[in-house]
Amino acid sequence: MANDKKLVEQITSMDEDFAKWYTDIVKKADLIDYSSVKGCMIIRPYGYAIWENIQKILDARFKATGVENVYMPMFIPESLLKKEKDHVEGFAPEVAWVTHGGNEKLAERLCVRPTSETLFCEHYANIIKSYRDLPKVYNQWCSVVRWEKTTRPFLRSREFLWQEGHTMHRTAEEAEERTVQMLNVYADFFENDLGIPVVKGRKTDKEKFAGAEATYTVEALMHDGKALQGGTSHNFGNGFAKAFDIQFLDSDNTLKYAYETSWGVSTRIIGGIIMTHGDDSGLVLPPSVAPIQVVVIPVQQHKEGVLDAARGLVETLQAAGIRVKMDDSDQSPGWKFAEYEMKGVPLRVEIGPRDLSEKKCVIVRRDNRAKSFVSIDNLVDEVNASLKALRDALYEKALANRDARTFTATTLDELKDIASRENGYIKAMWCGDLECELKLKEEADVSSRCIPFDAEAVGDRCVCCGKEAKKTVLWGKAY
Amino acid sequence: MANDKKLVEQITSMDEDFAKWYTDIVKKADLIDYSSVKGCMIIRPYGYAIWENIQKILDARFKATGVENVYMPMFIPESLLKKEKDHVEGFAPEVAWVTHGGNEKLAERLCVRPTSETLFCEHYANIIKSYRDLPKVYNQWCSVVRWEKTTRPFLRSREFLWQEGHTMHRTAEEAEERTVQMLNVYADFFENDLGIPVVKGRKTDKEKFAGAEATYTVEALMHDGKALQGGTSHNFGNGFAKAFDIQFLDSDNTLKYAYETSWGVSTRIIGGIIMTHGDDSGLVLPPSVAPIQVVVIPVQQHKEGVLDAARGLVETLQAAGIRVKMDDSDQSPGWKFAEYEMKGVPLRVEIGPRDLSEKKCVIVRRDNRAKSFVSIDNLVDEVNASLKALRDALYEKALANRDARTFTATTLDELKDIASRENGYIKAMWCGDLECELKLKEEADVSSRCIPFDAEAVGDRCVCCGKEAKKTVLWGKAY
Repeated sequence: MANDKKLVEQITSMDEDFAKWYTDIVKKADLIDYSSVKGCMIIRPYGYAIWENIQKILDARFKATGVENVYMPMFIPESLLKKEKDHVEGFAPEVAWVTHGGNEKLAERLCVRPTSETLFCEHYANIIKSYRDLPKVYNQWCSVVRWEKTTRPFLRSREFLWQEGHTMHRTAEEAEERTVQMLNVYADFFENDLGIPVVKGRKTDKEKFAGAEATYTVEALMHDGKALQGGTSHNFGNGFAKAFDIQFLDSDNTLKYAYETSWGVSTRIIGGIIMTHGDDSGLVLPPSVAPIQVVVIPVQQHKEGVLDAARGLVETLQAAGIRVKMDDSDQSPGWKFAEYEMKGVPLRVEIGPRDLSEKKCVIVRRDNRAKSFVSIDNLVDEVNASLKALRDALYEKALANRDARTFTATTLDELKDIASRENGYIKAMWCGDLECELKLKEEADVSSRCIPFDAEAVGDRCVCCGKEAKKTVLWGKAY
Repeated sequence: MANDKKLVEQITSMDEDFAKWYTDIVKKADLIDYSSVKGCMIIRPYGYAIWENIQKILDARFKATGVENVYMPMFIPESLLKKEKDHVEGFAPEVAWVTHGGNEKLAERLCVRPTSETLFCEHYANIIKSYRDLPKVYNQWCSVVRWEKTTRPFLRSREFLWQEGHTMHRTAEEAEERTVQMLNVYADFFENDLGIPVVKGRKTDKEKFAGAEATYTVEALMHDGKALQGGTSHNFGNGFAKAFDIQFLDSDNTLKYAYETSWGVSTRIIGGIIMTHGDDSGLVLPPSVAPIQVVVIPVQQHKEGVLDAARGLVETLQAAGIRVKMDDSDQSPGWKFAEYEMKGVPLRVEIGPRDLSEKKCVIVRRDNRAKSFVSIDNLVDEVNASLKALRDALYEKALANRDARTFTATTLDELKDIASRENGYIKAMWCGDLECELKLKEEADVSSRCIPFDAEAVGDRCVCCGKEAKKTVLWGKAY
């Protein structure tokens, strides 16, 4: 038991120091390692397997809506990046510049893509001629670089992995539909697959993507009450199409500019999973993306029949398409329990000598440690039911946390008071002026997370200036 | 028919100008597009789908041998790249350098990875402490950058997609086994999945990877008789382990250096497929990686029942796991035939009004245009049999081309004479001296492709200097 304790002691308690708890987990659960490349991270096998599962699910959902994958160059010539004014202003301060190829200085600097709107637009201008060429619904999975000053694994790093969808449409309506459609794909993935409740809403002009007409977001609230932008979907109108001259001949024989969207999620999602579901024993993974859904641990494995029975369970679960691992190493059961709890494996199945004659085994849930004794003949159904129950419990717990941390303010003093005492969403009315938004940042240290699509008004006056206000905004601190 | 002809006329004949034929195909089959980033290419949906299929097959085979995927940073600090002497000399002249992040000059230049040995080694030095930590068998799918002066789509571009496996082992023997094992995975994939015959062999010291003890290769011969290095697997011995101080405590309680391998294939494979199987009508894709394996084309589709019957075929094939597309657009059948031939779709299924009552349809093979009339009730079996027959025929045709283009030379004059008249493999003995290798390059414009594992001697004197020679080498011109 000394060993088990030691393992657990190595993690800082989340209530004591949430930030330290987080970095402890990403290291101790073998998700990442640091390298000599400042601000970049190594994603280790266990962390990368989570990302592969995220990719597999989302890629299939994207393709079901007609998305085609492509690959664009990782470099953007400076002149190309500058073609759309708002865009370059938003990104230029944080890009990495390639100035030399081999021993020669380049005639024009190339930036390492922070995002690829400009490359997609240049390509679309080449290949879109007629309304018959529309829509174009492309996506790419790649890494992007943003030269951040302060970094944290998964949440903010100089290089990160993501997908970026870029689409072109014949009409403004169709572009708006696609923008909302992809936001809904993200929301469904967060809620149903990851068990993370999200608020769908619109970003204020201050917070929207550089060059977009409108940015929609799914916002999640972490265990500590800070918000995380989970994924965004942007409607560009035809601003980029004008800057890049993407015109098509419509069926009425006139040239028109196309309408564009883009949308993306990144390895930030993994940070969101950790901070929504994790606890003081480590990671807690939703079954949909867990590299190992079930770990089988033989107890008193030296006794006759135990290992064979454990292997039988593994085969049964594998045949049912469940991601299962057996640990029959010579570590103690207690060490193994702690290890797989740290790694967030949703279910642990134990089988020992006493279970053999009764044809039973024990299922232990990671989230609440609930034990159930089940018949081996019924194992697959029991495991599937437990996985589903676990996902539901994760969702309910996260929802309860969000409800407990959602506040309402009608005056600036009230808002400042709440923000000084609590992390969470503060619901308050806003007149729409940038000045008020900046003042709330300055005086209460909160930013606008979004204007929820389905928000009810909580008054009719701006929480900041007292003028008439129609927008309900969620304010908060964010990652 | 005017339309069909025009389409076909747009491709240069391969016998007339093979290089132009190649670039025609990559453009007309919608595999790539150029961008304003010189030397880099855009991989379009049809080209990227081929790569996704390659990835899916290889990734599963890798994982079956215990490979785990990871992600390393795309940047390498200059000091890290320089840690292994041979390695930096091999790569420094062709890397892209990042010198600025945002508006600030970096304290140390970062190169964009041309390959990631140095990053993997640094990580392995951190995580390998004991023999219990070995082996480590990691791989990553990513893009790499090499600042080439002349570029060609898929074959040589400044950025390309690949996988790079990097492994660490307890003994030299185990590293050698892994090196050979991965070479065999590649050989099997080329031959059985892609229908491309390969020669497995060892590279000469001149041609081996910078820093490796031994480089093994699978070499393929293209339709025009030039060779293509399909994939390589390197045994590094413990050279990098010494440079990076990767030591482990062995069970005998002594510190030892670990043994390393690396192995990779890239989007070059797509170039190899084009140049091995393509013809004057366009691409010919092996079924294993074809984005569309079967295109269903309704003939006289306005006639009653034709479209419904065609849809029925599509559903039947889809249900059997075959990648199928229906083209019921208003283009003429002739246009469609030419279009899907250009795209290399292995099988075309035609169904028209006359076929309905007989419950038949027509299968046309892409490679030889052979038509067979088959019963709809038997469609899946017939399609699977035709796909297999097509793969076999592609392999046999490529093998016959290679046989016809494999020559033997015993004197320098003979070798020069063959090289001046023919492209292909020239089998000749070599003493092992770099001087002779350089002289053959200088005087006959051929390089050593490999020393085949199973080559028989074709004499006992070096083709160049006449000294005693034990190594049989394949010489040739290469992409």
